[in-house]
Amino acid sequence: MNAKKTILEILEKHDEIKDVYFLACGGSLVDLYPGFYFIQAESATMHAAWLPAREFTIAPPKHLGKHSLIIACSHGGNTKETVDAVRFAHEKGAAVITLTHNKDSACNDSTMNPIIYDWAEEVDEKEKPQGIVLDLLNELMKAQEPDYKLYDTIAEGLLKIDRIVKAAVKKVQNRTWVFAEKYYKEPFLYIMGSGASFSQAYGFSICSLQEMQWMDCCYLHSGEYFHGPFEVTDEDHLYILLMSKGSNRIMDERALTFLQKYANKYEVIDAEELGIGEIDDSCVDYFNPILFYAMSVEYRKGLQDKRRHPLDMRRYMGVVEY
Amino acid sequence: MNAKKTILEILEKHDEIKDVYFLACGGSLVDLYPGFYFIQAESATMHAAWLPAREFTIAPPKHLGKHSLIIACSHGGNTKETVDAVRFAHEKGAAVITLTHNKDSACNDSTMNPIIYDWAEEVDEKEKPQGIVLDLLNELMKAQEPDYKLYDTIAEGLLKIDRIVKAAVKKVQNRTWVFAEKYYKEPFLYIMGSGASFSQAYGFSICSLQEMQWMDCCYLHSGEYFHGPFEVTDEDHLYILLMSKGSNRIMDERALTFLQKYANKYEVIDAEELGIGEIDDSCVDYFNPILFYAMSVEYRKGLQDKRRHPLDMRRYMGVVEY
Repeated sequence: MNAKKTILEILEKHDEIKDVYFLACGGSLVDLYPGFYFIQAESATMHAAWLPAREFTIAPPKHLGKHSLIIACSHGGNTKETVDAVRFAHEKGAAVITLTHNKDSACNDSTMNPIIYDWAEEVDEKEKPQGIVLDLLNELMKAQEPDYKLYDTIAEGLLKIDRIVKAAVKKVQNRTWVFAEKYYKEPFLYIMGSGASFSQAYGFSICSLQEMQWMDCCYLHSGEYFHGPFEVTDEDHLYILLMSKGSNRIMDERALTFLQKYANKYEVIDAEELGIGEIDDSCVDYFNPILFYAMSVEYRKGLQDKRRHPLDMRRYMGVVEY
Repeated sequence: MNAKKTILEILEKHDEIKDVYFLACGGSLVDLYPGFYFIQAESATMHAAWLPAREFTIAPPKHLGKHSLIIACSHGGNTKETVDAVRFAHEKGAAVITLTHNKDSACNDSTMNPIIYDWAEEVDEKEKPQGIVLDLLNELMKAQEPDYKLYDTIAEGLLKIDRIVKAAVKKVQNRTWVFAEKYYKEPFLYIMGSGASFSQAYGFSICSLQEMQWMDCCYLHSGEYFHGPFEVTDEDHLYILLMSKGSNRIMDERALTFLQKYANKYEVIDAEELGIGEIDDSCVDYFNPILFYAMSVEYRKGLQDKRRHPLDMRRYMGVVEY
């Protein structure tokens, strides 16, 4: 993938991008959240929205048009809601970039500036969806905003993140086994995160646990926890806390302090302890979710083995009509 | 409250509003989501963002300034995160409107264009937060967008919604008792909704059940359900489905069809059956959540009585330091 080339070609045709819409379904939607968060926090020229693909088609924004960029992701490349949304946006004159794993899919269409990614464990994080999106947005910001200051640090981060993730994967393997050993019969758990990493609390819940392990759980924002959800906390409830490094860490730390006082069963996945500090402070917020995604993969593997529930087993998805 | 006067005064000082930020915590954040959804779908001149107040202060958007409007809500009026965010935005030159129940609070400050609402059951829905926000945004759209077409239908809807809600409250009372009788021992449940009403799946979970009943549950988007979470569905799992009338109903209906086939325990709260059809189709999307909120109040009352868990009982909120 040549992010710079893709972006420059789009800017040549569309002059200026004013809106970036991040559209997908399920796990692919999760992958797009950090990009949305990045544009919302960093861009002086663009606005961003992040929403389920079908909701976009049902209630399309009035700003949609020539100066819009759609970033859509569909792992299999044929998810109807996503393909419909992308085609609809393209008809309205918007620029489109699709990410897919499947080169033989509807998403691999030249009108969509398709990017085909590989998903294997050994692939560099920079070449997987979250890395690709950050790379694209970094180029877009550089090309469009003269005052943009994060270009070099994000480019450096994209070079560093793979090594950080792979070292962290090794580091946590034993603790994922211990976690599974202790908690594999737990009826229910809460997963918390904040900032760009809120997406990973969501993805950990709906993909890694609900979909792949048929385990009941709920995702919570670590800040919002104190405005309602914390009332269920007691020594019997299980929590996983995704602690980001960066500006939103104070929300996660507050949740940790509370859990230490009132809970008994909680697992802390701390990006700082896992080495994310090698990324520059100015942009580490946007790299935490890449690390947390890899950690959710390790934890679900630990659970799969202990619970004897294969990660790929499905009873509905791709099995029945719905 | 005189919504028109408030909006015209703001427009006089700020010329034009380009960004509307909806900021709050917990239940108050829930109340602001339909307004966010409305601006995102309907406005040709404004963009909207909806986020936990602290996250806004931690990662403030670069667009924040003279042409921004902050709509913030704090029931008690002193929620630190919300007050901090509002003061920060005010310093940046943004227009601010605060909604609060407490006239003796930090939110009742003349720089914040405060609106004091009453919360009692008999108060007209138009005078409660969701109604107030819709009224304000309707005036803002009318004042700012010559092509805006929903003004009269929304104004009519605001006159009708109170009667609809009060009739629905009477209609569901017995079924909330039956629901509580059947399910009060349920260890866990999922609550689904979509469109503007996704906020009510969230609020039902984090406020009515997690906070007020210490009950474990998870909120899901009815569209996203099919991209992961539906794998946990079986005859033992309990679901509450908020079925909106309007453009996003097709997502809720799809979820219902699936539940009818693969689940056994599910409660449907259908806005159409509960009379929301009196509101014009062009804007009913923005009224469903007002009805669903009132329904969540009835269901939690039913659960309170059967579970003998007082709705106002807290073990942490306002009780301990955190």
